[in-house]
Amino acid sequence: MDLETIKSNLERIAAIGADENGGISRMFGTPFIQEAQGVLKEYFEDCGMKAWVDSAGNVHGVLKSEKPDAREILIGSHYDTVKQGGMFDGLMGVVAGAEVVRELHDKKCSLAKDIHVIATNGEEGNDLGGTFGSRAMTGLLDIESEAYLEKAKVFGFSGEDLKNAVLDTSRADCYLELHIEQGPTLDKYKEQIGIVTGIVGLRRYKVIVHGVSNHAGTTMMEDRDDALTSAAGIILMADELARELGHHFVKTFGVLQVFPGTVATIPNRVEMILEIRNEDQKLMDRFMEIFLQKAKKMAKVDVEPVVAKAPVKCSGRIAEITEKICKEEGIRYRIMPSGATHDGNAMASKVPVGMIFVPSKSGISHSKEEWTDWKDVYTGISVLYKVIQKLESEGKVC
Amino acid sequence: MDLETIKSNLERIAAIGADENGGISRMFGTPFIQEAQGVLKEYFEDCGMKAWVDSAGNVHGVLKSEKPDAREILIGSHYDTVKQGGMFDGLMGVVAGAEVVRELHDKKCSLAKDIHVIATNGEEGNDLGGTFGSRAMTGLLDIESEAYLEKAKVFGFSGEDLKNAVLDTSRADCYLELHIEQGPTLDKYKEQIGIVTGIVGLRRYKVIVHGVSNHAGTTMMEDRDDALTSAAGIILMADELARELGHHFVKTFGVLQVFPGTVATIPNRVEMILEIRNEDQKLMDRFMEIFLQKAKKMAKVDVEPVVAKAPVKCSGRIAEITEKICKEEGIRYRIMPSGATHDGNAMASKVPVGMIFVPSKSGISHSKEEWTDWKDVYTGISVLYKVIQKLESEGKVC
Repeated sequence: MDLETIKSNLERIAAIGADENGGISRMFGTPFIQEAQGVLKEYFEDCGMKAWVDSAGNVHGVLKSEKPDAREILIGSHYDTVKQGGMFDGLMGVVAGAEVVRELHDKKCSLAKDIHVIATNGEEGNDLGGTFGSRAMTGLLDIESEAYLEKAKVFGFSGEDLKNAVLDTSRADCYLELHIEQGPTLDKYKEQIGIVTGIVGLRRYKVIVHGVSNHAGTTMMEDRDDALTSAAGIILMADELARELGHHFVKTFGVLQVFPGTVATIPNRVEMILEIRNEDQKLMDRFMEIFLQKAKKMAKVDVEPVVAKAPVKCSGRIAEITEKICKEEGIRYRIMPSGATHDGNAMASKVPVGMIFVPSKSGISHSKEEWTDWKDVYTGISVLYKVIQKLESEGKVC
Repeated sequence: MDLETIKSNLERIAAIGADENGGISRMFGTPFIQEAQGVLKEYFEDCGMKAWVDSAGNVHGVLKSEKPDAREILIGSHYDTVKQGGMFDGLMGVVAGAEVVRELHDKKCSLAKDIHVIATNGEEGNDLGGTFGSRAMTGLLDIESEAYLEKAKVFGFSGEDLKNAVLDTSRADCYLELHIEQGPTLDKYKEQIGIVTGIVGLRRYKVIVHGVSNHAGTTMMEDRDDALTSAAGIILMADELARELGHHFVKTFGVLQVFPGTVATIPNRVEMILEIRNEDQKLMDRFMEIFLQKAKKMAKVDVEPVVAKAPVKCSGRIAEITEKICKEEGIRYRIMPSGATHDGNAMASKVPVGMIFVPSKSGISHSKEEWTDWKDVYTGISVLYKVIQKLESEGKVC
């Protein structure tokens, strides 16, 4: 495999939706998505694949085995970006799949299994929900809902389109994805590869802290029930609790509103969104149990669940294969969960999933400052290539 | 003095701007203000005074001494309300002044000094600044500013009007005001009268807490610099510090904004308004010194002053007279600062000020739930009457 080819193709396709400041806005539903579909289809064909765009806007390319009824290996990532995003998030995994196929094709390898590369549409948050393309392929879209179909229509998708996008995964052995870490850990510890054990579950809660509004001049400190002071205590308590639990447990209050929100009135209400993420549902249950217990001692508090996404386990078998390759090649690696959602969340409902991370400079992503060194990109694609070689040489692997 | 007369007049005038839910919105600049001016002028005349409305919308009533060139005693409070306010805030003090005069007039008392009752306009926060009417009378409006005059024009005031509203205070001995406490202290301790030592100073600061934005799923707790977690620590630190300082020191964060303010992003910036109030400038200096020292150790913090109002000292002489009356009458009283701003802030720039508080049920004001028991209103007016009797029987009093 040739780094210059990888680099020129990634840069060429990343330019679709780029602005003069270096940010890339190839967002779901924009004309840049259609432009990218055409470019990707041609690129997949250039790599030796038969290519097509499905009715949910996912771009597919297949390199067939000569064996009739061969099983297949799926390789994917997304080709859309957030607003003002970077060039590696998603697209690097698409190019990785295509370049692995180019190598197999150019070397005229005899394949035991088909290789099926998928560039997914709408993985980033959008009006039809993130991981749109992979949820379409795995039949997870809410196509029974009239309201959902109404929204889908705005983006040009009929109910029939969404139904037709479902992928036959009966011959698929697994789904593999190479992605940037989008966190600082690999960069911080100077590691080249992250072997992903699973994608963390996520829960969001609306936390409402009550107090009593009063005049900020005439109400003495000892007579106050200040909702914001109570909320501050609850934020610090949650922070400490997350650190105590360890095991990559994270908690975030990203949104907070104060009521009535005027300079000379003691707040009577604070509304905030608590987000927790972990690979282990039981640890999330434990956090919430202690959090509620402690919070209710600190103030009058209401907590309502808003979102709950279960964790996803990656294939242990593929992780072992990847680890063995890293050891043989002397590659510095880390076994770690993914803190971010990926197409793997949806794909895991149908097939075993293997994910490989490469470092994100300072952990930055969803920003034009996003960066991964080219040598790390190359290492990532090389490891993916070796994993596929290994899977091709086996029977049913996962 | 007759409680029924006091009650019926207060209720009658309070009805101007009242809605069906019981809230009163006799706000500055609304037609209710003009309606109230006419009603108050007639009411003052009915109490035996010569009455007029000045060019800033303050309503004046004077009961003259028979002595030529007599000095005068000012009694005042405001007749405007906040949006959806209560019936006692401001108006009770106006009615108190008028009813004291009615009593002196009906009893045909021989006055050593003129009694001058003033119902002030726009004391509550408004586009021309709170305590508008009293600042007009004391020449504290910014009539040199073109921008201010532009704004004043919207409310129908010319520069000439504002200049002409300045009151000649050369014969005034003092300014007296009866007001509801607007805090819970008298009600909590079952006291009938608050003797006000001064009106606290007020300072507001914009506090900006910096952090580093990052993905809420992929950034481990130990790698975070969460601006909201830092802000929470700073809020609790300030709360503790205010309590430690004592001496009625109060601090409030009533406004707080989180940036970027999305559920899955670690906040990189929190902007909040810190308000502190105290009678003692040095204590406020001390608070800010320690606050800054500690906050800067906790996070990257910027603090910018926004508002600073100096404390006002009330007349010790009038406070002594009031205390003596309470003792003689067996009235339960408390010597206390005012945590809220009043017309006294402006009046104190020209004449000694005496303020008397009566209890606010549960400390509630600026709300239709605002309440003061009628027996407490009566006690307040009776004490005011006795203070005036005492001041009338003396020479220059303050």
